[in-house]
Amino acid sequence: MSMNTFGKLFTVTTWGESHGPAVGCVVDGVPAGVPLREDDIQPALDRRRPGRNSAVSPRNEADAVRILSGVYEGTTTGHPICLAVENANQRSKDYSDLARLFRPGHADYTYTVKYGIRDPRGGGRSSARETVGRVAAGAVARRVLGAFPETGDVAVRAGVVALGPVAADPAVWNEQAIDTNPLFCPDPDAVPAMVRELDRARENGDSLGGIVRVQATGVPAGLGEPVYDRLDGRLGGMFMGLNAVKGVEIGDGFAAAGQTGSVHNDAMRSRDGAPDFLTNHAGGVLGGISTGSPLVVRLAFKPTPSIAGQQRTVNADFADATVAVGGRHDPAVCIRAVPVVEGMMWCILADFFLLDRARRRG
Amino acid sequence: MSMNTFGKLFTVTTWGESHGPAVGCVVDGVPAGVPLREDDIQPALDRRRPGRNSAVSPRNEADAVRILSGVYEGTTTGHPICLAVENANQRSKDYSDLARLFRPGHADYTYTVKYGIRDPRGGGRSSARETVGRVAAGAVARRVLGAFPETGDVAVRAGVVALGPVAADPAVWNEQAIDTNPLFCPDPDAVPAMVRELDRARENGDSLGGIVRVQATGVPAGLGEPVYDRLDGRLGGMFMGLNAVKGVEIGDGFAAAGQTGSVHNDAMRSRDGAPDFLTNHAGGVLGGISTGSPLVVRLAFKPTPSIAGQQRTVNADFADATVAVGGRHDPAVCIRAVPVVEGMMWCILADFFLLDRARRRG
Amino acid sequence: MSMNTFGKLFTVTTWGESHGPAVGCVVDGVPAGVPLREDDIQPALDRRRPGRNSAVSPRNEADAVRILSGVYEGTTTGHPICLAVENANQRSKDYSDLARLFRPGHADYTYTVKYGIRDPRGGGRSSARETVGRVAAGAVARRVLGAFPETGDVAVRAGVVALGPVAADPAVWNEQAIDTNPLFCPDPDAVPAMVRELDRARENGDSLGGIVRVQATGVPAGLGEPVYDRLDGRLGGMFMGLNAVKGVEIGDGFAAAGQTGSVHNDAMRSRDGAPDFLTNHAGGVLGGISTGSPLVVRLAFKPTPSIAGQQRTVNADFADATVAVGGRHDPAVCIRAVPVVEGMMWCILADFFLLDRARRRG
Amino acid sequence: MSMNTFGKLFTVTTWGESHGPAVGCVVDGVPAGVPLREDDIQPALDRRRPGRNSAVSPRNEADAVRILSGVYEGTTTGHPICLAVENANQRSKDYSDLARLFRPGHADYTYTVKYGIRDPRGGGRSSARETVGRVAAGAVARRVLGAFPETGDVAVRAGVVALGPVAADPAVWNEQAIDTNPLFCPDPDAVPAMVRELDRARENGDSLGGIVRVQATGVPAGLGEPVYDRLDGRLGGMFMGLNAVKGVEIGDGFAAAGQTGSVHNDAMRSRDGAPDFLTNHAGGVLGGISTGSPLVVRLAFKPTPSIAGQQRTVNADFADATVAVGGRHDPAVCIRAVPVVEGMMWCILADFFLLDRARRRG
Repeated sequence: MSMNTFGKLFTVTTWGESHGPAVGCVVDGVPAGVPLREDDIQPALDRRRPGRNSAVSPRNEADAVRILSGVYEGTTTGHPICLAVENANQRSKDYSDLARLFRPGHADYTYTVKYGIRDPRGGGRSSARETVGRVAAGAVARRVLGAFPETGDVAVRAGVVALGPVAADPAVWNEQAIDTNPLFCPDPDAVPAMVRELDRARENGDSLGGIVRVQATGVPAGLGEPVYDRLDGRLGGMFMGLNAVKGVEIGDGFAAAGQTGSVHNDAMRSRDGAPDFLTNHAGGVLGGISTGSPLVVRLAFKPTPSIAGQQRTVNADFADATVAVGGRHDPAVCIRAVPVVEGMMWCILADFFLLDRARRRG
Repeated sequence: MSMNTFGKLFTVTTWGESHGPAVGCVVDGVPAGVPLREDDIQPALDRRRPGRNSAVSPRNEADAVRILSGVYEGTTTGHPICLAVENANQRSKDYSDLARLFRPGHADYTYTVKYGIRDPRGGGRSSARETVGRVAAGAVARRVLGAFPETGDVAVRAGVVALGPVAADPAVWNEQAIDTNPLFCPDPDAVPAMVRELDRARENGDSLGGIVRVQATGVPAGLGEPVYDRLDGRLGGMFMGLNAVKGVEIGDGFAAAGQTGSVHNDAMRSRDGAPDFLTNHAGGVLGGISTGSPLVVRLAFKPTPSIAGQQRTVNADFADATVAVGGRHDPAVCIRAVPVVEGMMWCILADFFLLDRARRRG
Repeated sequence: MSMNTFGKLFTVTTWGESHGPAVGCVVDGVPAGVPLREDDIQPALDRRRPGRNSAVSPRNEADAVRILSGVYEGTTTGHPICLAVENANQRSKDYSDLARLFRPGHADYTYTVKYGIRDPRGGGRSSARETVGRVAAGAVARRVLGAFPETGDVAVRAGVVALGPVAADPAVWNEQAIDTNPLFCPDPDAVPAMVRELDRARENGDSLGGIVRVQATGVPAGLGEPVYDRLDGRLGGMFMGLNAVKGVEIGDGFAAAGQTGSVHNDAMRSRDGAPDFLTNHAGGVLGGISTGSPLVVRLAFKPTPSIAGQQRTVNADFADATVAVGGRHDPAVCIRAVPVVEGMMWCILADFFLLDRARRRG
Repeated sequence: MSMNTFGKLFTVTTWGESHGPAVGCVVDGVPAGVPLREDDIQPALDRRRPGRNSAVSPRNEADAVRILSGVYEGTTTGHPICLAVENANQRSKDYSDLARLFRPGHADYTYTVKYGIRDPRGGGRSSARETVGRVAAGAVARRVLGAFPETGDVAVRAGVVALGPVAADPAVWNEQAIDTNPLFCPDPDAVPAMVRELDRARENGDSLGGIVRVQATGVPAGLGEPVYDRLDGRLGGMFMGLNAVKGVEIGDGFAAAGQTGSVHNDAMRSRDGAPDFLTNHAGGVLGGISTGSPLVVRLAFKPTPSIAGQQRTVNADFADATVAVGGRHDPAVCIRAVPVVEGMMWCILADFFLLDRARRRG
């Protein structure tokens, strides 16, 4: 029940601030005997790191992961795996002017009220840098699921399906395209317009919101622990708790509120002697338990709060002030969130798989 | 970490099925010395119970709550409070025909896959009857918050702001109206159209989805436990895990994805020497911590899965079949969810208040 | 993490006070498909209840258990099992004189300091009556372990091996004898002297301490979750937290402190191709994990604090006073603790079995 | 609920093996604003480290602690504190011969059965090296308690009160002496005989058990969370789960089993208007809650399992074998356990203080 730990059997504790010496995580509950090397983790971190291209923050960090424990000769031992990434590029002077101003849309004010103290270096713990641990843990979770026959076919992919006013075609989900454009967008045709909006926002000293869709296929039916640790509840909680997320939908989401039961209910039929859903309005979850259909979740990200334009605010003495936030910021946080969302999905699935396994009979 | 418990310091364990002898909950972590009587709990249950009017299920139960422990002479003792409600009206024969069919949109199939056994009596544990415990616990949480000066002014209200195709005026939030119409709708002008849609759906053997908005005012700034037990994360998780919810938004929610930072960021000003937010796009949470502005959450409910019309499905032998679900069902589950959503919000706030209190200095 | 819940996957939440309407528990995490009826639970409660014979409190309660949820047609459904026992015999007037005095050796003073309120009816929550829930849950755990082949042979037995100054012969562990004498003593030859001491203590208005030994056989090797949820740690924690327990030993316990390594280490040999321990100084646990040898734990119980003789104390105004505690008390709490200790051992083993199962491969 | 985390509000997650690159811990739940520097932690680690003198293992490590997160300009921020200690002296070749033998009294066999894999380097995770994190976390807990007025006077001291056959005088508790002899013994007169026994055991290729007593003074009355997170329960669980501990006593412990109630009950009197206990047979806990009297706990440690003498065992193929364990071992593990036990006591008290604080009114 520590604040910086998630999961029940597959648990992840993250630690570290934007401008401290390092960030990382402790992954506990990993079964013994799972092949794991730093090479299994590094590619996911490389996808997440800033400086990758013009669509994201120019802060450039190698983000090389180091396994400090829990692995012996390339195999997990069943003991806690500590993963650490040095913070190579700690330009904390970028932030020094802001230390006494509450940046609108940031956690500056709430952290100060709660903790009575504020680490002004790049947002401290509220920085997106904290997500390094989530991505690294996700790579471990992926190896765990890969090691069991029931979950060997699970695949997780996320992509940006809307950026500011530009929406991708909902019918297009081209996974090959996701890694070949700087926006992680599954619809290549939408990319040029998205890039134009991003450029325009940057020129205006402004930022954009967006929507990330994540999909998991090959998830066996039966995962989820009603009634207070349902699969949909966990997805809702973990994703809503990610920085900048303001909305989460599963399956048809808000559109379901306007549907009738005869439209929304996913009918079933027998196919090769097994039940088969004719549609997937539910997004792969019924009663909080996976159905075997693809898990489909959409997350609404607010625009990056750090913008170059002037904004009204108050200072640490609670007097009126204005602020313009310089520094190296992503113009749209949803883009770099893509590998983070994937990592979190892997972790959630690994945890529910182990939970289900504990009590499953026969 | 039990499946049927939520909360960390203020914890609620619910138990009971739709057609067993009783349903109830154990509320643990309640501070000693809080005034509490059955009369504090009964009104919330009365708002939730079926048979209240034509908009909800005609199943009529008195739902009289009994305090079995943890209270001595009208005051909490600091020990677990067991609350029980007898199931007076167990017409399980209504469901007997359905025992070997998987009802589309229900948890029948996923429960069978997961548990290898199914309690066909009214959905068993997946029934909305489980929410009795959430409502009762919410009434306890409300008394807890009322007993501390910091939270004595917290007020929680929920209402139906969309029903099927009919949306309430987003500018109208008339709390007096909520309890004077059968739909818990805060916009009296929208009620006639909503009632018409409800009647039409019922006549068609169909059902409706809808949107519930819940608002908490008087919440002190500083509640929430980053980074994995954030206030927004908990709201997202608890509400997405409620039966029939497919989407959750905080503040501007999905609309924020289409905004720019200059629009979305809530500017601040000094007012009577204290920080004041000029807008509340954030919905009362920044960085996972309450800002002091009203907490605003919207939940999308899918239509009631039980409909009278014929639907394709499979039976317990995985052969093709059709099903038409009779019995006493709410034509729109979102309506009776209103007091449940309020109860959950009270519980969440009580828990975060105690968590914050544990570590707050000076 | 609620205060009144124990276990991780097999969890037990108990509720109820000595003189409230009922006591009981919610058992969560029980796998679906386990045969369970009230008849599986009642015998364990019958062994625990007072009034059984002259060695225990004359308070006479039928303690009939009722399953309120989680079981359908004699089989567990995978959902929380609420078990309740009415408090039939609430003679709370016995205690009314004591309400303003702190009884030495009781929790009266510490409960008052902590909670600022005290339920004087028979000790309220600190009463031994709370253990009804532990015994009932233990009977459920026993059925769970019985339903899996790996743990089908687990057997748990406890007995009183010392009562005041009388010690049983450590070489005698006659399980048949345990249930045929009123003291649950495994050494029939020690019973007469124990009974004499008990009679003498009662005549003197005094009480006796004692030692309970509990043994579990058939426990598979591999149970326990290092390093902070080790099997020995859990045994130590659960048993030390039982009312009146002041010491816990595993295997040789305190005697091990006086041994050399060459004496204490349990040597191994190959027997039918499997490892076999030549001795069991370790008491069945090494490195926090079960070895496959019998689990052996000893618990030291202090004497019943309620005695008829005069004792110095203070009253609720913190003025000097004297107190003599009348009423229906067990002259030695360790006797009725025997079925409670067995119940707790069953619960602990069920939980560790499920935890191990979750992550075990191949 | 991860396996390698303890505590509820003040939580500690340890990671690292004996011969990996580093060991450490993540301390979460620390209130913001507590002064903390590496200098606050290092002295406790220095007391624990091997090579300090002839009574302990000659393995010599500087054990320099590094704060990787959660502290800004010498003050805690309220965020997770990662502490790391490099493993400077990884002579893993010492252990290579043993990799295929199960050392009696060690966790080799149980780890192999549970995990199906074994890290032979110095015991891996079951090594005493894991306790570095407990000691470091204890130093943080000490600062936390020091920062609150209610707990500013808490003092914790442990010492070796028996070593093999030599017992210290139970009436002598000379805290100044503890740090001025190599055995952490509070009775200077007992030291020479203890040293002689230690030398003799070493000469015989054997090892010794012993008893550690730990005492906490200044603990406010009211700490502990009945009924399943009692102070005595947590002490019993945490200490029994420490490597090599086979018994735990609180207050009179096993001696209480032989007492009558009139002897054991601690009478009270009024002193300066406050309740005062005339004796402390209870060891500072009644009903699972601290009384305000000193907390007194005794732990029985088994002899170091690694001995130079020949022992019967089996090898990885389950064939008969013999083993003699060379290398750098403490002849009596209880000695270096003293600072570990102190660290754990600090952590336990910090956690219970925060838990009590969350719900305490007025």
